[in-house]
Amino acid sequence: MTDQPTPPDDSLDPAFRRRVPHGDSLERDVCDRCGFVAYDNPKIVVGSVVRSPGGVMMCRRAIAPRIGFWTLPAGYLEHGETPEEGARREALEEAGAEIELQSLLAVYTIRRLAQVQLIYRAELRGGYLAGPESLEVREFGWDELPWDALAFPSVTWALEHERAAGGGAVLPFANPASTEEAT
Amino acid sequence: MTDQPTPPDDSLDPAFRRRVPHGDSLERDVCDRCGFVAYDNPKIVVGSVVRSPGGVMMCRRAIAPRIGFWTLPAGYLEHGETPEEGARREALEEAGAEIELQSLLAVYTIRRLAQVQLIYRAELRGGYLAGPESLEVREFGWDELPWDALAFPSVTWALEHERAAGGGAVLPFANPASTEEAT
Repeated sequence: MTDQPTPPDDSLDPAFRRRVPHGDSLERDVCDRCGFVAYDNPKIVVGSVVRSPGGVMMCRRAIAPRIGFWTLPAGYLEHGETPEEGARREALEEAGAEIELQSLLAVYTIRRLAQVQLIYRAELRGGYLAGPESLEVREFGWDELPWDALAFPSVTWALEHERAAGGGAVLPFANPASTEEAT
Repeated sequence: MTDQPTPPDDSLDPAFRRRVPHGDSLERDVCDRCGFVAYDNPKIVVGSVVRSPGGVMMCRRAIAPRIGFWTLPAGYLEHGETPEEGARREALEEAGAEIELQSLLAVYTIRRLAQVQLIYRAELRGGYLAGPESLEVREFGWDELPWDALAFPSVTWALEHERAAGGGAVLPFANPASTEEAT
């Protein structure tokens, strides 16, 4: 915070360079203009496989990446949210859907994006309506899922893990074996 | 990256101010010097409750905060690690201990720190030796745990949840009810 705010200048850019900051042991991105150390912490994605009377509710992406492909309601956890709150918010934002979370289906790691994904099992409560990030929201029966038009490998994993779990309680899954290349 | 690296200047400081960046909907910390948007994503802490023949292995903290208090081997997940790899690394760094992870014990949210903690159940494989961040590492029997000298509320929760789980498989716990004030 500054006492005398200056007008924001959106033409500015940080000048990051990889180096080891004082008192640290690993290389980080440090800005040569302002000294900021970008710790580059992994990011948490929260989402859910939403069961409904029609099968599973999916969203067709209206935003990059993978516009037009089908995905689960999911996104970055915000500051101060619990993962459960974040998963419910994403379902509301992307699909206009109220959901009831049941248990944690999976913890996936997308190594090259430094993402940890917490995917919950959920049930739809009421209707749905595509939000601004979705072209379309609909239910798919388990035998008509659009496997060839899924947005990300972890969407495939989550649907397969949910199907494997059936209705029963399961310990959370991790990445399927031999998925290093897919992530 | 820059083609002509300039010498790092560790006297620099970012000039962050809260404002809504273009194309966003929430206020973020934006640097007035370089334009960097600090998304302030929640951070992931990974750790484990390490069972051993003597009970449970604990570390006495050599670093702030809570120097001298007892904790589980735990710390921030690094970029490109899976949570499981991070939990094993922390046990090695803080307690010189090789551990075998079993299942996810709990997902806790520390709202005011914007932390999501993934705590695993683990078993000790071999010995241990205090690392630079620990004053001491030792095993406690389940009836002699230092409840009054634990470093953080989530250490208490994890020990109580592990005790409640007994030897059996359990779905991951979340924060105990009515813990908003404690976090």
